[in-house]
Amino acid sequence: MADPKPLVLSVPHPRSIDLIFDAPSKDQLFSRYEVLETEADDLADLDDKTLGRARYILGQPPLSDELLARLGNLRCVFNVESNLIDNMPYETLFSRGVHVVTTGAVFAQPVAELGLAMALNLARGILPADQAFREGREVWGGDGNLRARTLEDSDIGIIGFGDLGRALRRVLSGFRARIRVFDPWLPPSMLRDHDVIPATLDEVLETSATIFVVAAITSENRALLDAKALSRMPDGAGLILLSRADIVDFDALMAEVRSGRITAASDVFPEEPLPKQHPVRDLDGFIRSAHRAGALDSAFRKMGEMVLEDMALLDRGLPPQRCKRAERETVNRMRSRPVAIN
Amino acid sequence: MADPKPLVLSVPHPRSIDLIFDAPSKDQLFSRYEVLETEADDLADLDDKTLGRARYILGQPPLSDELLARLGNLRCVFNVESNLIDNMPYETLFSRGVHVVTTGAVFAQPVAELGLAMALNLARGILPADQAFREGREVWGGDGNLRARTLEDSDIGIIGFGDLGRALRRVLSGFRARIRVFDPWLPPSMLRDHDVIPATLDEVLETSATIFVVAAITSENRALLDAKALSRMPDGAGLILLSRADIVDFDALMAEVRSGRITAASDVFPEEPLPKQHPVRDLDGFIRSAHRAGALDSAFRKMGEMVLEDMALLDRGLPPQRCKRAERETVNRMRSRPVAIN
Amino acid sequence: MADPKPLVLSVPHPRSIDLIFDAPSKDQLFSRYEVLETEADDLADLDDKTLGRARYILGQPPLSDELLARLGNLRCVFNVESNLIDNMPYETLFSRGVHVVTTGAVFAQPVAELGLAMALNLARGILPADQAFREGREVWGGDGNLRARTLEDSDIGIIGFGDLGRALRRVLSGFRARIRVFDPWLPPSMLRDHDVIPATLDEVLETSATIFVVAAITSENRALLDAKALSRMPDGAGLILLSRADIVDFDALMAEVRSGRITAASDVFPEEPLPKQHPVRDLDGFIRSAHRAGALDSAFRKMGEMVLEDMALLDRGLPPQRCKRAERETVNRMRSRPVAIN
Amino acid sequence: MADPKPLVLSVPHPRSIDLIFDAPSKDQLFSRYEVLETEADDLADLDDKTLGRARYILGQPPLSDELLARLGNLRCVFNVESNLIDNMPYETLFSRGVHVVTTGAVFAQPVAELGLAMALNLARGILPADQAFREGREVWGGDGNLRARTLEDSDIGIIGFGDLGRALRRVLSGFRARIRVFDPWLPPSMLRDHDVIPATLDEVLETSATIFVVAAITSENRALLDAKALSRMPDGAGLILLSRADIVDFDALMAEVRSGRITAASDVFPEEPLPKQHPVRDLDGFIRSAHRAGALDSAFRKMGEMVLEDMALLDRGLPPQRCKRAERETVNRMRSRPVAIN
Repeated sequence: MADPKPLVLSVPHPRSIDLIFDAPSKDQLFSRYEVLETEADDLADLDDKTLGRARYILGQPPLSDELLARLGNLRCVFNVESNLIDNMPYETLFSRGVHVVTTGAVFAQPVAELGLAMALNLARGILPADQAFREGREVWGGDGNLRARTLEDSDIGIIGFGDLGRALRRVLSGFRARIRVFDPWLPPSMLRDHDVIPATLDEVLETSATIFVVAAITSENRALLDAKALSRMPDGAGLILLSRADIVDFDALMAEVRSGRITAASDVFPEEPLPKQHPVRDLDGFIRSAHRAGALDSAFRKMGEMVLEDMALLDRGLPPQRCKRAERETVNRMRSRPVAIN
Repeated sequence: MADPKPLVLSVPHPRSIDLIFDAPSKDQLFSRYEVLETEADDLADLDDKTLGRARYILGQPPLSDELLARLGNLRCVFNVESNLIDNMPYETLFSRGVHVVTTGAVFAQPVAELGLAMALNLARGILPADQAFREGREVWGGDGNLRARTLEDSDIGIIGFGDLGRALRRVLSGFRARIRVFDPWLPPSMLRDHDVIPATLDEVLETSATIFVVAAITSENRALLDAKALSRMPDGAGLILLSRADIVDFDALMAEVRSGRITAASDVFPEEPLPKQHPVRDLDGFIRSAHRAGALDSAFRKMGEMVLEDMALLDRGLPPQRCKRAERETVNRMRSRPVAIN
Repeated sequence: MADPKPLVLSVPHPRSIDLIFDAPSKDQLFSRYEVLETEADDLADLDDKTLGRARYILGQPPLSDELLARLGNLRCVFNVESNLIDNMPYETLFSRGVHVVTTGAVFAQPVAELGLAMALNLARGILPADQAFREGREVWGGDGNLRARTLEDSDIGIIGFGDLGRALRRVLSGFRARIRVFDPWLPPSMLRDHDVIPATLDEVLETSATIFVVAAITSENRALLDAKALSRMPDGAGLILLSRADIVDFDALMAEVRSGRITAASDVFPEEPLPKQHPVRDLDGFIRSAHRAGALDSAFRKMGEMVLEDMALLDRGLPPQRCKRAERETVNRMRSRPVAIN
Repeated sequence: MADPKPLVLSVPHPRSIDLIFDAPSKDQLFSRYEVLETEADDLADLDDKTLGRARYILGQPPLSDELLARLGNLRCVFNVESNLIDNMPYETLFSRGVHVVTTGAVFAQPVAELGLAMALNLARGILPADQAFREGREVWGGDGNLRARTLEDSDIGIIGFGDLGRALRRVLSGFRARIRVFDPWLPPSMLRDHDVIPATLDEVLETSATIFVVAAITSENRALLDAKALSRMPDGAGLILLSRADIVDFDALMAEVRSGRITAASDVFPEEPLPKQHPVRDLDGFIRSAHRAGALDSAFRKMGEMVLEDMALLDRGLPPQRCKRAERETVNRMRSRPVAIN
């Protein structure tokens, strides 16, 4: 009798199999694996034999030590939501050599592209110029460019240099800019290998005409960019916030923009959805995006490809390479809340 | 007695010396050269000895054969307006070996940056999303991205591959896109050397999700993009017009955008300034910029640097390298009207 | 009283502290850490208090489970020899969350540079042409290039895509070649992200005019390139062997070169040092290098920098990033013998 | 009656049509054009009607003013030998607007590849190490690398930045080196655009561990690199000579190499062929190549493609773009002797 296919427990909520696998990938998934689609709450009710056979979990369901003990052949938890929350005994998983991986890298390119658009929009005043044109009060030629600047030959700062920071660096590669990066979790020589300048937070703040904030939120960096930090930014600079709102003092940011000293753009907000009366809604010098930077269908589809590629390696007894592994040292520092909607 | 300094006749209207030379460059200009600032109308009234000494003309004044005959030591006309108009006997100039050069390359980078911003804005719906957010009707997350797409892994077309097309290619270098170029004045192998795919106009139109129109207007390409050509573009594609409005049938373009089939952005318009009632003003799916793409102070300042660098070569009997030379074969095909304002 | 400095047990043989730390790095090491220099054999004789304080081991000494139990605060073993040998209970280390890292990445760039030189030397016949010139029998101009080829616009294969394969890809980035990579431990999409073409071993062998062999030797790939595999290479192709000799059937390789069908270069040999009478010594069409590809002083010095950078992260409770981590799944598959000399 | 095909006078000696056109290109040539294959000496004997119809000359035959007057429809001389010699009235040609173009750019990539190989060979001592290995006196590992260095993170100088210098810059793009360029015919900002550092000759000589000499020989740079200039090079540096031997004092270069202070490689020699007893033949620290750097069949074939591409533009009344145009200011400064053999 042929070996049974490896078993995948599928609990990808709020994602779904159809969101993250396109048709050919879904075919691959179901032809290579037995896929048991279930809900987080029902996991513990599965019989021991089934749990004991499970090789992969697709999703981020709560796992108790007791449940984990029954999952004796588990090799990897594929967290396709991609924000790590504190709902499983990571230490036990890591001791046993079970990988916990995330697929958030799929968002890096679409977020970087939106980020670059925002940076260019701020540098060139594209949104207010279009609005003025609509209203018949446009200013023609150089007179309309009094505060305009190029990214070429400019100083750019990036705060956080994970997948997203690296994608930003890549889309900026044609611009001949000086790029400074603050990332306290990375050694300086690795930053230099990416052709960026390692810098302190203050150096980034004080020298950059454009700053991208792409650090994940951790136990250490909440409100990292407070009023004092923001006040270090040069006059006329633009700040683009792409990771999580909690990393800045949002009121302080709005105050700086309202004063006209800097401009800003953000894809993330202190509350999502945001109250209808929130003052950022009609703030000039600010560009708003409703947490749309990463959530493209093409990005979700890549999650499925990543999962299949790493399952194929794990099936052969090799470590996963495509998804990002949670790490003992940092998993408990992560503070990004999971998304409620895709 | 020391040799007198070489003489420059300065008639840069509508530019001015202070617009195109920053302070250190202006110092260089005046310390290396004798600069006679005059007006186009007054040139012919200069005495023969002065005209006979003139090595350079800075500007694009009308020159008759008669006046040219008096300019016996002229080596180069630096056209700092940068659109070549038919106001001098180019054939005579070229026969004598007098260079006519333009400094329009300074605009390539700022125009390319604005062009890329427009492409990203169209691909991601950034302007209407911000407007919706202002008005409290934003759509959060993936639901707001139903028509969004990335430039990465997309098909991009560029029509015209001069300085501006090359600058676009450079700022797109981090995007891993397939870039097709239509430029009938360039051999295919040169395009391949720039890592783009040589293509016919129809191929560009039919395959590109994003098209940049950056061809100079010539005697041959007026209304090149007419209704039929535009109809070849795929549904959902975006067209970014950056060179001159005459290259498209503007009414046809507006009709395609109004239908919702494609989106567009433009920095140039059939009339500039544009009448207050022009229908493009409130056209959804269209982003407007009032001929602001290139006219940054930083760009104008580079003109002066380019002029000084090429004068230094010409002073040593070498050909100019930095500015772009007008050519016998094409100078009379150019149809871009000069700008009235900077 | 100030906290004592963290303790480093230093047993780097065959490296030495002076080999891998330049003067400023050595100063840093000794100012930040208490460094106890000892020998592998003496480790077990250290008292419990000392062992219990040790945070890092610099080197690759044998570690028993018993000794490990006494090293209660150990965070990381820095294997600066860089070939992982089976002399410590890796499973126990990983269960406890102790990192084992290697610093072999420092060799990637010098090896890649030598590899590229070898590829160009083979493609252009540089060594025999110089020898002929010495002997007065050189052939001038195109007549001397009958078998010469460029790397530009050629097909290149890379077998193994770790640090070294990636360094090769980087030094080849200016050549516009089609690069195919075989690496069964990596998912195809990661290869595509590095702008190479994922391929099977046979595809690499059959299409490449130049093949670089840079795979580490494992339990699975001994003599991967046997006579049959080598026979798939196109006539006139060149093979450059840079990792370990055991990955090819060396006799088969010599036979192919002796026949004149292919050419080859190698930095590694079945025995090192090699017997004086080994037939590769006077084999034409073969370039020999005596395991010199990586061992540059500048490379060794980078080991010290890497170690310091990762210690700094580990000191702050963060995971190491600069050095390469051994992995549970693969550590026991590694079969490279450690070097006896630097 | 259909228009007759445009007439090409073909006198490509020492090249030949079969050398520079592959089969498909040759088909194109003969299907688009009437090709009259003749000899330089026979040109003047052609009848007026034939000469008057000729649109292109393929080759570099001597042209008198008288003969030129009979070539009333001549648009372009395609010099496929590629060294401009003083055998035609260039001034008359340029006054009339007849282009004179060369196809030497085809050699840039093969020469750059050989140049890079030479630089790596010198930096790593590859040739003497192989020779020692042949003779059983190789030194293993780091002990064999006492004078070895990487190109990465090194200082590289390029003298001359035409097609060849640019090809070198391209093949060096993966090396993260500081590249200084001396080229007095180019403005500094153009060099910066190629991501190299404009420098004086002395700066290049004094700072570079590796120097590439790729300047064409002109009336001004004979023996530019004399004993004094060479003495400025740092100890241990390597010089790679790729353009013409006359640009260096060859005896002085040999003396520096003989002293062991620097190393060198050359593709060009004071006499070609070189006397059998020339002392460079057995000079250690010197790598010899018998003018083989560019003359690959694949390069010659590209000449035909370039010629066809530019003829196609010229046929449409457009200027040539692919080949390099001779210029009034510099054509008479060129002093490279033409090659006698391909």
